[in-house]
Amino acid sequence: MTEIPATHSDLLDKKTFAHVATIGPDGEPQNNPVWFDWDGAVIRFSQTKGRQKYRNVQREPRLSLSILDPDNPYRYLEVRGKVVGIDDDPDNEFIDKMAQKYIDQPQYPWHQPGDERVVVRVQPVHTTTMG
Amino acid sequence: MTEIPATHSDLLDKKTFAHVATIGPDGEPQNNPVWFDWDGAVIRFSQTKGRQKYRNVQREPRLSLSILDPDNPYRYLEVRGKVVGIDDDPDNEFIDKMAQKYIDQPQYPWHQPGDERVVVRVQPVHTTTMG
Repeated sequence: MTEIPATHSDLLDKKTFAHVATIGPDGEPQNNPVWFDWDGAVIRFSQTKGRQKYRNVQREPRLSLSILDPDNPYRYLEVRGKVVGIDDDPDNEFIDKMAQKYIDQPQYPWHQPGDERVVVRVQPVHTTTMG
Repeated sequence: MTEIPATHSDLLDKKTFAHVATIGPDGEPQNNPVWFDWDGAVIRFSQTKGRQKYRNVQREPRLSLSILDPDNPYRYLEVRGKVVGIDDDPDNEFIDKMAQKYIDQPQYPWHQPGDERVVVRVQPVHTTTMG
């Protein structure tokens, strides 16, 4: 298992975004911000089954998360990792937990009828840091 | 040429970071924040020749920039694009301009002896937005 450098592991516990780069169907990079959490072993983020990113990580499990320190934008942590699991989230338990963390609401307010949520679990493989 | 949606083009003029996803030597995504500017046609960011990202964009010109609105983190713009030029910046003119924009200093303060800077020019190909 790859260790997160102790100098930057605090970023994984902050209320900041991870910009998640995945590989699209034609091998091109795709990139967008997500809410995430970290349990000391895996980074988790939510995704709906309708989104391109969900298909991307099923095809190519390698991804990279770029995370800025909200308290010092000249500190960052990049976590390159691989998707080690995609779990259904039928009761929106995980996305509701993220809503609590990020916007202090017990329920995710932007749920759309028909959205099927999953939890993507990422194991760190390599890190880069600045600051 | 791909248009940047008028609803989100203001993000390209703000003092915010672009998280740049490129493709590494083994086809894996890499991702990190950069300063950038936009002239209405291309996005530009600085890079040193010693960095992996410089080699990445020479090998694979497709990249993706994920840009959050600093004034509303639930607005973002993703710009997928291709590198249309890499220009030497021997006098650090461009990186100094970025230092002026981002940290209000006329000269980039973290220049290291031996760093050779280039300016990467990116033409937008596709965009996604939220918020």
